[in-house]
Amino acid sequence: MKPRVVIVGGGFGGLACARALDGEPVDVLLIDGHNYHLFTPLLYQVATALLNPSDIVYPFRTIFRRSPNVRFRQAFVTGVDMQARVVRTRDEERIPYDYLVLASGSTNNYYGHPELSRFTIGMKTIPEALRLRNHVLSCLELAAREGSIEEKRHWLTFVVVGGGPTGVEYSGALNELLKIVLGRDFPELSPSLARIVLVEGSERLLHFFSPELGAYAKRILTARGIEVHTGTVLEKAAESSVTLSTGEVITARTVVWSAGVRPTEPTADAHLPRSRSKRLEVDEHLRVKGVEGVYAIGDLASVRQDGGELPMLSPPAMQGGRYAARAILTVVRGRSVEDLRPFRYVDKGVMATIGRNAAVAQTGPLKISGFLGWLTWLVVHIYYLIGFRNRLAVLASWAWNYIRKDRSIRIIARSEADPLTEEMETGRGTPPRAAPGAGG
Amino acid sequence: MKPRVVIVGGGFGGLACARALDGEPVDVLLIDGHNYHLFTPLLYQVATALLNPSDIVYPFRTIFRRSPNVRFRQAFVTGVDMQARVVRTRDEERIPYDYLVLASGSTNNYYGHPELSRFTIGMKTIPEALRLRNHVLSCLELAAREGSIEEKRHWLTFVVVGGGPTGVEYSGALNELLKIVLGRDFPELSPSLARIVLVEGSERLLHFFSPELGAYAKRILTARGIEVHTGTVLEKAAESSVTLSTGEVITARTVVWSAGVRPTEPTADAHLPRSRSKRLEVDEHLRVKGVEGVYAIGDLASVRQDGGELPMLSPPAMQGGRYAARAILTVVRGRSVEDLRPFRYVDKGVMATIGRNAAVAQTGPLKISGFLGWLTWLVVHIYYLIGFRNRLAVLASWAWNYIRKDRSIRIIARSEADPLTEEMETGRGTPPRAAPGAGG
Repeated sequence: MKPRVVIVGGGFGGLACARALDGEPVDVLLIDGHNYHLFTPLLYQVATALLNPSDIVYPFRTIFRRSPNVRFRQAFVTGVDMQARVVRTRDEERIPYDYLVLASGSTNNYYGHPELSRFTIGMKTIPEALRLRNHVLSCLELAAREGSIEEKRHWLTFVVVGGGPTGVEYSGALNELLKIVLGRDFPELSPSLARIVLVEGSERLLHFFSPELGAYAKRILTARGIEVHTGTVLEKAAESSVTLSTGEVITARTVVWSAGVRPTEPTADAHLPRSRSKRLEVDEHLRVKGVEGVYAIGDLASVRQDGGELPMLSPPAMQGGRYAARAILTVVRGRSVEDLRPFRYVDKGVMATIGRNAAVAQTGPLKISGFLGWLTWLVVHIYYLIGFRNRLAVLASWAWNYIRKDRSIRIIARSEADPLTEEMETGRGTPPRAAPGAGG
Repeated sequence: MKPRVVIVGGGFGGLACARALDGEPVDVLLIDGHNYHLFTPLLYQVATALLNPSDIVYPFRTIFRRSPNVRFRQAFVTGVDMQARVVRTRDEERIPYDYLVLASGSTNNYYGHPELSRFTIGMKTIPEALRLRNHVLSCLELAAREGSIEEKRHWLTFVVVGGGPTGVEYSGALNELLKIVLGRDFPELSPSLARIVLVEGSERLLHFFSPELGAYAKRILTARGIEVHTGTVLEKAAESSVTLSTGEVITARTVVWSAGVRPTEPTADAHLPRSRSKRLEVDEHLRVKGVEGVYAIGDLASVRQDGGELPMLSPPAMQGGRYAARAILTVVRGRSVEDLRPFRYVDKGVMATIGRNAAVAQTGPLKISGFLGWLTWLVVHIYYLIGFRNRLAVLASWAWNYIRKDRSIRIIARSEADPLTEEMETGRGTPPRAAPGAGG
């Protein structure tokens, strides 16, 4: 029997690992709470009615259709028994492994203020992005209904907390959406009623980027009418207002949370060593310290390099996933992981788009901004998307949007509550139709 | 001031009416609970992961972007005060009208068995279609997880109640979806484990069609592996099984309800005269009997012609909508409605698709089936879709599906609960962020 590798999480890291093990002499089981891989860099375009969710996701089963040694299981991992070498799921399944790769990524970080999750909308998953899209479009309809200008303004005030790539990209895209539809599709409203406030705690936007590019982003956003408050934090969020550290109180019906992420806890029961940032401590071969046969990668792993922790971004996750696969195959083939050169992340650069014809990209000493940066951003993102159909669909939507200056997916549409779906999507539902003892 | 026309409902009838009044000397307000017009004939393709919701809907505001005399309001109408000539909405708004067109259509009919709405999934709206898509895809994942063949079969048994166009089209499309993905994407499952049971109370499928075409549909569906039970009704539905009138008990995790619709009740408070089918009694000019200035069209109106009531289908609704517009304009121009020739529905035919290369169409004495019927169906549906982009997107999806034999939107994805969206979509939410007294 072939050694069994279980990968927990099908984000950029877990997927890269599974792909690197495709066709190799191991049996791979990839576990994820969703049935699809999500291309998170374009999530903000789903949230702003430019793309369909299906354009930026790809079902795991389709990815591995022709890979007999890679299987998929939709499930929520609740713990790991490191002694018995068994992964536990919420459905009381016990899944044995010989090698385990922990790649469950990160989730919204509210920094000890759980009430923020009630008053703000995050943007880490498809359900969150759809919620944000529906919410913003509902705000426009409600603003249109209001009689008083004052009330219209409240519905049309959007506070975005966090000036990293997500916050910057979302603010820029939301601004374009509002410019397109207010006035033209909403004769009851004018673009001048809308207000977007971007709040960032540190002194500059895009802190993974060089200071010049952060300043460029701020300049462009400001020129396009977005209020950018750097060096400012959210002091308090309530029912329909936020208080900034500057003392300003803003009445807003929408607060978007993109101020940070924290590692998930798939092994909360195992008391594994964690760094100050709560990421799992790993050795130079990405093995979780103190246990055997367990690797951690991506946002979940604390990898120190050049005096700092690797950032929670997709490139380190993908490189880590491929390295973990190589390490496992080395052991499977009877050699020692110590024979491998330690994992070393190669930084190929970062990029973010700010809006029409404007983006920033940085690779090594090279810094690109403006239209050229924007083109670079387009090409790189299309290249990394999975699936020919998705590439085609995204390119077509972008072309349509660019030429027609329109957003076509401007619909307020949720799916009706289905107990089974809720169960599969959130792991919190109680499916009335689920067979007792399912998962045997 | 121009006379004010309020249209309740933006389905085929209401939309046709609003379009016919576009540019005319009246002020039109179109009210709908959703912010988009839904092209219902393709809803089953959303439910079977072939199309995106955005492909078959179109925002009302975009449709009337260049129509200064047509406005839109997203709201739920709860009643009409015929004396005061005011429409009431759930948000306590009172909207005055000079002429009122009631076009709120129909909803699922459970024939006095409300428990059916708990144990079955309908297919009249985008939220329902998404629920059905998510539910069926979740069933596949749960079947894959099961150890026993018996349990796998239960997850893979789908009962469709109602053999009209919706039931026939959905059964055919579901069958194709299962054939495509079972085995290929789910190595844990084989197509032979799946079972689709189509149950129809009358003696034949597609009772709006000629008997030959109904028989053809039954033959094709049966040949493709679907169990068709005509002359059979659903006796009982429970947690995870249904009982048919034949006595057969089928264990199934999915029961789809397409057995009939009933008119909505936007004027429940007004005690208007209704036909036996609960549709509003109208005169030969589509005016609701006994009240002034109120028209009813489409599924909501009981229009008698040639000894029977017009069917609840889109063509009578569209023709009724255009007629009501003409009647209103006649009065506005100072003439009498009686000068108009009475409304007369011109039947241009009906069509339904059964699956790949097979459809039935009937216009006058002409009956088409098979590949030619299928081509006719394609052309007609593309023609009636609204918006160039939607036509392009649907054509591209169909071509992709036809050539690649694949369904690309196979994702289990709901939007996260948002109070505001819930409020706007269902009229049942309690929006914590809604301003008190909104809608002034």
